[in-house]
Amino acid sequence: MTRLWNDPSDFADEMVVGFVRANGRYVRQVYGGVARSTAGPEPEVAVVIGGGSGHYPAFAGLVGPGLAHGAAMGNLFASPSAHQVESVVRASERGRGVLLSYGNYAGDVLHFDEAQEALRADGIDCRTVTVTDDIFSAPADDQAGRRGIAGDLTVFKLAGAAAARGDDIDGVERVARLANERTRSMGVAFSGCTLPGAEEPLFSVPEGRMAVGLGIHGEPGLDETDIPTAAGLAELFVECLLDDAEIPDGVTAQGARVVPVLNGLGSVKAEELFVVYARLADLAEERGLTLVDPQVGEFCTSFDMAGVSLTLLWLDDELEQLWSAPADTPAWRSGAVDTAALTALDPDADVEPERTIGPASDASREAAHVIADLLVAVRDVVDEHADELGRLDAIAGDGDHGIGMQRGARAAADEAATVVELGAGAGTLLTNVADAWADHAGGTSGALWGVLLRALGERVGDDETPSGATLADALTAASDAVKEHGRSDVGDKTMVDALVPLAATFAEAVSAGKDPAAAFTTAAEAASRAADETADLLPHKGRARSHGEKSRGTADPGAVSLALIATTVADRHRRS
Amino acid sequence: MTRLWNDPSDFADEMVVGFVRANGRYVRQVYGGVARSTAGPEPEVAVVIGGGSGHYPAFAGLVGPGLAHGAAMGNLFASPSAHQVESVVRASERGRGVLLSYGNYAGDVLHFDEAQEALRADGIDCRTVTVTDDIFSAPADDQAGRRGIAGDLTVFKLAGAAAARGDDIDGVERVARLANERTRSMGVAFSGCTLPGAEEPLFSVPEGRMAVGLGIHGEPGLDETDIPTAAGLAELFVECLLDDAEIPDGVTAQGARVVPVLNGLGSVKAEELFVVYARLADLAEERGLTLVDPQVGEFCTSFDMAGVSLTLLWLDDELEQLWSAPADTPAWRSGAVDTAALTALDPDADVEPERTIGPASDASREAAHVIADLLVAVRDVVDEHADELGRLDAIAGDGDHGIGMQRGARAAADEAATVVELGAGAGTLLTNVADAWADHAGGTSGALWGVLLRALGERVGDDETPSGATLADALTAASDAVKEHGRSDVGDKTMVDALVPLAATFAEAVSAGKDPAAAFTTAAEAASRAADETADLLPHKGRARSHGEKSRGTADPGAVSLALIATTVADRHRRS
Repeated sequence: MTRLWNDPSDFADEMVVGFVRANGRYVRQVYGGVARSTAGPEPEVAVVIGGGSGHYPAFAGLVGPGLAHGAAMGNLFASPSAHQVESVVRASERGRGVLLSYGNYAGDVLHFDEAQEALRADGIDCRTVTVTDDIFSAPADDQAGRRGIAGDLTVFKLAGAAAARGDDIDGVERVARLANERTRSMGVAFSGCTLPGAEEPLFSVPEGRMAVGLGIHGEPGLDETDIPTAAGLAELFVECLLDDAEIPDGVTAQGARVVPVLNGLGSVKAEELFVVYARLADLAEERGLTLVDPQVGEFCTSFDMAGVSLTLLWLDDELEQLWSAPADTPAWRSGAVDTAALTALDPDADVEPERTIGPASDASREAAHVIADLLVAVRDVVDEHADELGRLDAIAGDGDHGIGMQRGARAAADEAATVVELGAGAGTLLTNVADAWADHAGGTSGALWGVLLRALGERVGDDETPSGATLADALTAASDAVKEHGRSDVGDKTMVDALVPLAATFAEAVSAGKDPAAAFTTAAEAASRAADETADLLPHKGRARSHGEKSRGTADPGAVSLALIATTVADRHRRS
Repeated sequence: MTRLWNDPSDFADEMVVGFVRANGRYVRQVYGGVARSTAGPEPEVAVVIGGGSGHYPAFAGLVGPGLAHGAAMGNLFASPSAHQVESVVRASERGRGVLLSYGNYAGDVLHFDEAQEALRADGIDCRTVTVTDDIFSAPADDQAGRRGIAGDLTVFKLAGAAAARGDDIDGVERVARLANERTRSMGVAFSGCTLPGAEEPLFSVPEGRMAVGLGIHGEPGLDETDIPTAAGLAELFVECLLDDAEIPDGVTAQGARVVPVLNGLGSVKAEELFVVYARLADLAEERGLTLVDPQVGEFCTSFDMAGVSLTLLWLDDELEQLWSAPADTPAWRSGAVDTAALTALDPDADVEPERTIGPASDASREAAHVIADLLVAVRDVVDEHADELGRLDAIAGDGDHGIGMQRGARAAADEAATVVELGAGAGTLLTNVADAWADHAGGTSGALWGVLLRALGERVGDDETPSGATLADALTAASDAVKEHGRSDVGDKTMVDALVPLAATFAEAVSAGKDPAAAFTTAAEAASRAADETADLLPHKGRARSHGEKSRGTADPGAVSLALIATTVADRHRRS
């Protein structure tokens, strides 16, 4: 279990700070993650990697000369937001384009794709190669549907080496695709990890049993067996990964040169890995493989999960040359990097999010002040109810809704205070707050709060005090945007169940002539009732696998937190 | 807990094989551990480190250019034998002398000192600097009495760098002493580790509590507290390590340059260490320190123990230069080592123990065959009773007596078969078997079995069939040697309680005219009775802390296993 933290909701941020303080030679902190702290004499194509935190040394530990240029770092096991990815790319890109590479998970794909779109719109040549090495996550004929695990290392390393030798963006993309096609992995696990502040492990495997094919966040595998001997595990790995279907096209096992990466996922220790490796090396050689530069250690972890994975990288001459090319990062090195040729970059650049604070009317600035105050109240009420929201979520989900809302609301209040000082109007405040919330909260709920706040900001604008009609229009737009972005509707047991009646009731009350404060009070009451009523619903079939039958009789935490915030805003506004 | 092994008694050996297979670029396997697999153009003073296994990357992971030249690797948490240390030194030394450096533990000191004596007798200039960095293991005015923990890294690295720059043995010893004086550490733990095959952790800390000052094998600390926050732990570290008494002579904290090594002991993960480090760096800088090249990761572990230690290395100009000098090992690197200047050494050299098989009479060779057969029977009976011996030991000790005896007896039977093939006489067989037993069994009991078998071998010689009188003399000599080496006597509840009556009864029966086989049967019966009677004894006060009141009513496992082996030999001999 995880034992050392301060406030669990600050864990990921503090981790980045400590990581950068210890590794300033390689990395500097930028908004949304880290970028290299040095630059070579010639600009390279940037390789920007990333994903959720909790997998160290993936991803930040792999940034440095010869490997990645930057890593977008989401919260624990949560994708970085599009805004964060974009920010890390802007701090890393030097005019030759950027390759985005990351493990193939729905949340990451959503946010990295959104960032790619924005970057391309800005004229940056942006390509994506997702890592799809886990053979247990989809059949061999659906490699693109597989998720990414420790094969991240081999794909990132080869792409980074191609960038370092001066390849253009087409060349780096080609190498990354080839590396991914030639990388296959499988993992097993004996127990799950416990996130900071959580009381229970994220998942568990029965005592004495081994889950085969388990993903790095506890995604289910195909099989469960008794824990084998070390030799038995080596045999299982070799059997599965040397299955004909898993030997890449154009390669034959006999005589092939292969880099094996035997990866501990957290609390399986080096000594055990070496005992497994002793047998693995014999078996692989019996099958005709030549093992090149074996890697035994921790390359992609899952906090303190007890598990092991094996990755095979099937080399050709070009890939072998790229594999052995010099690289020097906090957690992975090869050869000898010419550090004398590197120039140190300003460690304080790119640390703040990019903000454009446009002109605003006095009235709108006044409204921004009011909203900033409301966001302080929201932060406080979310803090107060975080445990309760977590417990509600734990019944059918992974229990992190409370902590995610807490991180989002805290970041929103901070960001609001900052941009109010910079003279932002209400609209600009809301759009900046939208990014801050999504960047810090993580997860789907964080992204949806970002969408909601951004939609409000865009309608409210910076010109005048928002009228009741403007606010009604803004709330309706926000409600529509959340429905569209979250692909959900009323009755699916999500925050939409509270948001739609909130917007509709407010609009109705305003058009019936109520003043905005009174209208919002009525609307918040409607939202609260609707949130309570989600207890009678079962989630839509398409929803995340973590929801389901178990949530019958329990209100949806997303709807409850929306109603809670609406009620707080109504109370506060009425009193002021 | 540890989950992956084959036969737990083979774990340490298989670990070395896997480690070397994965890291052949740096190390080759030699008898007793590992040595560098390459040599630079100029011979250097050899830095040979070592200790028990289970602390990876200590010790084998620190062998390579710019750091150590060899590592003697004992069994799990057990010192390597003197014979193993000697063997690793002989494979590493290139005529300029050797520095032995290791953590200050009684078992290691005993064996490394014995090796040093033998090496010096052979004309090799051999020096020793033990690492004594753990401030909680003895008061500040008794630094020499302190044990060694993660400060191993800094002492080894600086000594290795001095050797690499060409210092002579005086110079390397001086640097190592200075490095040790300037290295201070402290550790905390949240839970103990479970050794391969064990059902229970080696020690435990109550849930939610933290042992302060705990050693890397569970040696007790001074204090126990609730688990603090990450920041609270950073504060505790800084408070204790920046106490005036712990700032080395001639240094002031204000303006000092210090390398911090924040070390995870097994299942505390990188993410947690970074969160601790974020606060630690602030606190240290507030106290006026400048932090140089921070190390955050795993440097000296204790299997999967949940714990953290902080080491501070207080630099001066020379030490800072040596710290940043190039080094390249499986687990630790700095700068850029010129690998082109290295020559590969023969990976198959020095793998077998050195054996001198002198001339022997046919009669003695015949006797050697008989002894080799007896040792097969001993191996089988020990295998059969290993669990029972372990359970007996678990009542008052650490429960590893069965596994240790099993490893010793297996190695003895193998070695006997090998030397019989090489034409050894009975005496030579027994002295070689003595080394094999001690090398593989580990622990005090292994060392004493080595002493016992060596004493027998020296008296039996290679000239003739040993007579009853010779055997009686040999057994008495063996009994005396074990008493002396183990500093114990009859009544102390050790194997001596069975060994003394075995030798005395045998001598008496032989002088009364019994033939050796009959005499040994009588002697074995006496040994068995005496072993049973140890249940009535309490251990001598000076014995290991693990024995005590708890063992009342239980026979001593060392005495029981001796009696078991004597009975087996008697039965087998009578039947043949």
